[in-house]
Amino acid sequence: MFFIPDSFIEKLLAEDLPIMDVTTEALGIGDAEGAVECFPKRGCVAAGIEEAARAFEISGARVETFYKSGSELDAGTIFLRARGTADSLHASYKVAQNIMEYSSGIATRCAAMVKNARRASPHAEVSVTRKHFPGTKQLSLKAALSGGASIHRLGLSDSILVFDQHRTFVGGGGEFALKIKDMSRRFPEKKIAVEAGGEEEAVLFAKAGADVVQCERFEPELLKRVIPRLKEINPGIKILAAGGVNAENAFDYAASGVDALVTSWVYFGKPEDIKMRFCAIPNLL
Amino acid sequence: MFFIPDSFIEKLLAEDLPIMDVTTEALGIGDAEGAVECFPKRGCVAAGIEEAARAFEISGARVETFYKSGSELDAGTIFLRARGTADSLHASYKVAQNIMEYSSGIATRCAAMVKNARRASPHAEVSVTRKHFPGTKQLSLKAALSGGASIHRLGLSDSILVFDQHRTFVGGGGEFALKIKDMSRRFPEKKIAVEAGGEEEAVLFAKAGADVVQCERFEPELLKRVIPRLKEINPGIKILAAGGVNAENAFDYAASGVDALVTSWVYFGKPEDIKMRFCAIPNLL
Amino acid sequence: MFFIPDSFIEKLLAEDLPIMDVTTEALGIGDAEGAVECFPKRGCVAAGIEEAARAFEISGARVETFYKSGSELDAGTIFLRARGTADSLHASYKVAQNIMEYSSGIATRCAAMVKNARRASPHAEVSVTRKHFPGTKQLSLKAALSGGASIHRLGLSDSILVFDQHRTFVGGGGEFALKIKDMSRRFPEKKIAVEAGGEEEAVLFAKAGADVVQCERFEPELLKRVIPRLKEINPGIKILAAGGVNAENAFDYAASGVDALVTSWVYFGKPEDIKMRFCAIPNLL
Amino acid sequence: MFFIPDSFIEKLLAEDLPIMDVTTEALGIGDAEGAVECFPKRGCVAAGIEEAARAFEISGARVETFYKSGSELDAGTIFLRARGTADSLHASYKVAQNIMEYSSGIATRCAAMVKNARRASPHAEVSVTRKHFPGTKQLSLKAALSGGASIHRLGLSDSILVFDQHRTFVGGGGEFALKIKDMSRRFPEKKIAVEAGGEEEAVLFAKAGADVVQCERFEPELLKRVIPRLKEINPGIKILAAGGVNAENAFDYAASGVDALVTSWVYFGKPEDIKMRFCAIPNLL
Amino acid sequence: MFFIPDSFIEKLLAEDLPIMDVTTEALGIGDAEGAVECFPKRGCVAAGIEEAARAFEISGARVETFYKSGSELDAGTIFLRARGTADSLHASYKVAQNIMEYSSGIATRCAAMVKNARRASPHAEVSVTRKHFPGTKQLSLKAALSGGASIHRLGLSDSILVFDQHRTFVGGGGEFALKIKDMSRRFPEKKIAVEAGGEEEAVLFAKAGADVVQCERFEPELLKRVIPRLKEINPGIKILAAGGVNAENAFDYAASGVDALVTSWVYFGKPEDIKMRFCAIPNLL
Amino acid sequence: MFFIPDSFIEKLLAEDLPIMDVTTEALGIGDAEGAVECFPKRGCVAAGIEEAARAFEISGARVETFYKSGSELDAGTIFLRARGTADSLHASYKVAQNIMEYSSGIATRCAAMVKNARRASPHAEVSVTRKHFPGTKQLSLKAALSGGASIHRLGLSDSILVFDQHRTFVGGGGEFALKIKDMSRRFPEKKIAVEAGGEEEAVLFAKAGADVVQCERFEPELLKRVIPRLKEINPGIKILAAGGVNAENAFDYAASGVDALVTSWVYFGKPEDIKMRFCAIPNLL
Repeated sequence: MFFIPDSFIEKLLAEDLPIMDVTTEALGIGDAEGAVECFPKRGCVAAGIEEAARAFEISGARVETFYKSGSELDAGTIFLRARGTADSLHASYKVAQNIMEYSSGIATRCAAMVKNARRASPHAEVSVTRKHFPGTKQLSLKAALSGGASIHRLGLSDSILVFDQHRTFVGGGGEFALKIKDMSRRFPEKKIAVEAGGEEEAVLFAKAGADVVQCERFEPELLKRVIPRLKEINPGIKILAAGGVNAENAFDYAASGVDALVTSWVYFGKPEDIKMRFCAIPNLL
Repeated sequence: MFFIPDSFIEKLLAEDLPIMDVTTEALGIGDAEGAVECFPKRGCVAAGIEEAARAFEISGARVETFYKSGSELDAGTIFLRARGTADSLHASYKVAQNIMEYSSGIATRCAAMVKNARRASPHAEVSVTRKHFPGTKQLSLKAALSGGASIHRLGLSDSILVFDQHRTFVGGGGEFALKIKDMSRRFPEKKIAVEAGGEEEAVLFAKAGADVVQCERFEPELLKRVIPRLKEINPGIKILAAGGVNAENAFDYAASGVDALVTSWVYFGKPEDIKMRFCAIPNLL
Repeated sequence: MFFIPDSFIEKLLAEDLPIMDVTTEALGIGDAEGAVECFPKRGCVAAGIEEAARAFEISGARVETFYKSGSELDAGTIFLRARGTADSLHASYKVAQNIMEYSSGIATRCAAMVKNARRASPHAEVSVTRKHFPGTKQLSLKAALSGGASIHRLGLSDSILVFDQHRTFVGGGGEFALKIKDMSRRFPEKKIAVEAGGEEEAVLFAKAGADVVQCERFEPELLKRVIPRLKEINPGIKILAAGGVNAENAFDYAASGVDALVTSWVYFGKPEDIKMRFCAIPNLL
Repeated sequence: MFFIPDSFIEKLLAEDLPIMDVTTEALGIGDAEGAVECFPKRGCVAAGIEEAARAFEISGARVETFYKSGSELDAGTIFLRARGTADSLHASYKVAQNIMEYSSGIATRCAAMVKNARRASPHAEVSVTRKHFPGTKQLSLKAALSGGASIHRLGLSDSILVFDQHRTFVGGGGEFALKIKDMSRRFPEKKIAVEAGGEEEAVLFAKAGADVVQCERFEPELLKRVIPRLKEINPGIKILAAGGVNAENAFDYAASGVDALVTSWVYFGKPEDIKMRFCAIPNLL
Repeated sequence: MFFIPDSFIEKLLAEDLPIMDVTTEALGIGDAEGAVECFPKRGCVAAGIEEAARAFEISGARVETFYKSGSELDAGTIFLRARGTADSLHASYKVAQNIMEYSSGIATRCAAMVKNARRASPHAEVSVTRKHFPGTKQLSLKAALSGGASIHRLGLSDSILVFDQHRTFVGGGGEFALKIKDMSRRFPEKKIAVEAGGEEEAVLFAKAGADVVQCERFEPELLKRVIPRLKEINPGIKILAAGGVNAENAFDYAASGVDALVTSWVYFGKPEDIKMRFCAIPNLL
Repeated sequence: MFFIPDSFIEKLLAEDLPIMDVTTEALGIGDAEGAVECFPKRGCVAAGIEEAARAFEISGARVETFYKSGSELDAGTIFLRARGTADSLHASYKVAQNIMEYSSGIATRCAAMVKNARRASPHAEVSVTRKHFPGTKQLSLKAALSGGASIHRLGLSDSILVFDQHRTFVGGGGEFALKIKDMSRRFPEKKIAVEAGGEEEAVLFAKAGADVVQCERFEPELLKRVIPRLKEINPGIKILAAGGVNAENAFDYAASGVDALVTSWVYFGKPEDIKMRFCAIPNLL
């Protein structure tokens, strides 16, 4: 269960619909009964389905869903059907479509990365960063999870990850290395992760006791050479590849032996094309 | 002035920062003084600057900005500098960066479309749709405006635009054509815009009195042929090209004689790369 | 469908009911079953019915409605019945009543204006401004729509309407006239509306290409003389009468040939009197 | 100090200004400097001044106020001046004006009632009900207080006031009378107020121990006769007149000897006319 | 009915569950069906049951409740059962448990005070202050009411209670005494309550016309002596004991003759221990 | 920097102050100038100071603070002074006091635990759970951090901690042990923590690869025996003691060799007594 509160969906609707669809009103078609069926234009991993369903329900339509978010669907597979008045359908279908298109885009890209990475290494993880579009944390993370990825960090308060921007305030590499042990003691329930900018830094941090080394913009070839050195220092250490990782190079990165591929790339591409087929339901009386 | 309330920025921060940056805390560097300077990695139209500035201020840093959103900047041009404790800078810099990177991406793509379109036709407009990522309406629209685009529609309540999905409930083309005049009378302050799926539909709607015809997926060649027919029917009619319009084909579309290019494409690409250069400020006492 | 989110109704309840009806508690009657029936004291156009129903439901009562907002009802016609414990009824009935009384007042005044205007001119529109009581935008607009009016503008971002307060910043009438064409090109999807303070200004703006002239405080006699001049300049131009328009003079204004009567007057009068008849339901066991 | 949070004002602005004043944008005047001065068109008790000032400040203008809410001002007296860019002034002036016009209307009507009542009885109070427009509790109450009225009840949780709608669930008058003593013991910090529908009911409730009798729709003549009977039963009892009380009959009601006039009438009339005089400030450089 | 809006419960969940229970996800048990039964570890007055039930429902579980808040339950008595997927149960059970444990703690302490006080004086009231943990007003007050207490004050706007901190601004005791009559006239619907710091102050305020004297940190012996003096001055006066009152000394305070015991003590102790017994429901197919 | 948004403080004020302090209003003292000084009644670790300061500022007072949250203060040490009108001080002082009293209570108890634990073991950590009063997450956690504790978990989404309630859905101990390795691979950035109910379970989980074993209700003697067994299995394993840990037994628990003491006990006790000394500032003119 991914918790996306109704109030969030309600707000998305309210933003698009301050009061009504003036076009429906102008045409005088509000009370006509109809239905809308949703299907992807090409094969994809559909996501955002539950939130789209709530959007339709909040605007007064009745919804059936045939697949859950995370399902890999062929082009044309209907996965959601909403029925109601033209009023209720027009009030929400575009918001519903937008949620599903952006979510499915992220999920499909995640799934592609996971697939490519796992071909090279069956236990490689794909982890999504907090570099999603501000204001979309819940939709973006749920979409990524639907696509088989996991979450790198929710935000600043849930994990320790030392960036260069932190080290600016600490002093030289040696001084910082001393701090790792200390942090480890003070936060016994958390792993100490450190971003390394090059091979020697990675080795330094491993020796200093880092639990996780996040290798920023290391080529796969470099990783292949570095990882054995790091695992020799600490067999339990986890190595992450970050920076420029995507579906295309996921195989190579995974093949290098990293434990996880950290990615923001999945957030950036095109939304999937989710078709919304409308039909009017003739009044049979 | 684009109105993005402080409460929105505060919420973005709170989402990323439920309580504190645990890494800063773990390192014990919170009270150290520092600064961060922001500049684009490549030339771009910077946007989201005012919102990033507010993010820094809300977390307790002091900010100077040297350019406004919408400025075309060369690579490396510093446009914002924030000073404060490591605590206050780390609390907000990533949210600030994300806002600026996504906003600048949209603004830069808008600016490219506007530039290409205006080379072909000095009065061509680029108009952005409501197909932005749900939850980002204000940031996305402000970014687009910063890039020189205008807003196609804010949502469902501010303009009349008849889609196929509406016409499903109306009946045949003839029946619908009769409604245009009627709508025009009922909403004297609004233009009646209709989406047309092909040449003959466009002509039919123009004859029926539509003020605006939105040509969905017409190739530039087709537009070149259609537009004179439509303007002959009604010299004041406005013609929009929608569907598949982007920076690359903007010149061709504008050259076809349309009044505006309607686009969602600007929302989809990569964020711009905005660098955040940190430095510690040594305590001189 | 007019979208007024549940969260708005919940907030109205919470404002009136921080924790409970202390009177019901003091009397110890909370668990008694009862019903309340709502009817207007005099004939009116009832409105706010759906929101009142939600208020009752949110506080735990069961509701039946017999008429929709916008229905013209005779005095005494029961249009809503709620059943539940004394607790649930007392928690919400006053908020429900207030919503309906203010909404029905606005709807009834709108309906009177529409009726009087249409007797003179069957296509005359009544359009309500954004000068409603701050904090009541959705209730006020929905009520106006229920009474047969349309919406003049939702706010500042959905239409172009040049006021004197804008022209202060532009320069002389001639300089401003030049801008109209320009605006028209930049916003091809919007009509350019301008407020005129007198006959010659109206003519000037029509000649300059305004799509809509809003005549501020023109007497009907003056409008009768001006409108033909304006329509001669541009047969498609729309003329609005604003300032001091109300139900009493709506016939005269409509008879002058304007396309729409713009009004804030409907927001100002007395709420309708909606009676809330309570009865206890004896426990028959 | 009346506490109306910034977030409330921000929300009123956001409602009117989803993103920007498109007219200011279309005219290209956003950066021009200007000022706006506010004054009443006729003598009135001005109110809502502090909230209007905050609206201007939130949109980026600088504000001076020369009078506080509750000041009785002559026509033409400037009480607020805002300076800033055309952008910042246009973003908020209408919301500011609406707040002040509705608030001043309520304050002025309250002041008239208070004045008329006090001429008859120097200690008569005017108390405003919770029958304000839903969504305006804080603005309406602050305006009433500015006009010299006091608050009858904030909502359901702060005082005990037994209505007929409560007694429906209790049983006959005798049974209810027994409850008054009981309530008085259970809520030693609160007065027990009861609404009476006629003379004998009022006497019955006074005998039963009510601290306050709210006389619903008693004519002043009737009150004159009833009040001595009630005060004889309990010299400390307080008598309120409610239902149909307004500025016109306030003198008569107060002269009848009631302790307070309970009114919703002040909420219903026209807003005051507050003029917003704009001027551009020429760039002197 | 105590009104605690769904949005409040939703927010408590969202705070604890930004996106999902990562442990449930990691174990891959989300879809397994199960149930949870709630019972107190020792006899207590259970409270918060309705809010806990809503928490379970909002996260997708189905709930049955067997007792209402305010019920005195023996150890082990099951009062709520929720069924659903492991996902839905783990998403909310801890929040539900926390609500019930803190609420039941307050309710049980209130009930103990009420019981002890009533043994000494059958009409003694226990009234809870606004000194609850900030952010818990609704949960704390509802819990107190469930335990048989009443509410001393909701906040600053619902009653007049003059503290020493107010009198600082008034001047000497005599000057203040003059004000009491005046306040009484200006607020005819409210009792005038004054906090007294000693016997002579109490007598002074009673003579000056206070309706309620709140005796701050008077020992029961002192109260026994003072109360007759005060009631002699005004037989209808109400006397409250405040400061250091708790379940242990409630009998003595009540025996002293006070009308109510004002307490914050009930907010401070340990939560009750509410057990949450989980079981998996085997899939029988 | 601990991020507690202004909007949260504003809401606490609004809850207590729907419109004004009616007592201040009734006394007519609103405009008098005054000051309030805050100091603890006994030595304590003060907390909530920054939030109290914001409360005063939001209501219009000016504030100086002399110590930061987390300072250990002697009885009587003034750490905050606010100046302003009686109006502004009365609007917020009680909310400010409540925030500081509850926060300082938590901080002081945390500091006592930390001190006692560190006497036994200089690196022992005290970690606070999510069992705070619902609605107080930010205030409670900030207070705990001010007292020298760290955060055990923010909520369900930031760490993996397997409870008995999860294992209900997994099957026998053996089956579960198999899952630990699997979880470790899937979440390379997180430690896998498991709650153990007894010695053999602890050993089993350590052998299965748990990074952290949370020992629920183990006596210190038992821990002393278990810990060497667990560290022998995995020298890097972290051991937490949870259940019944408090300031009194913190020394013994820390002496047993655990890495951290997990506690909810700090949330339950009495608030500290923070005095708010008012004085009026005579108008010297």
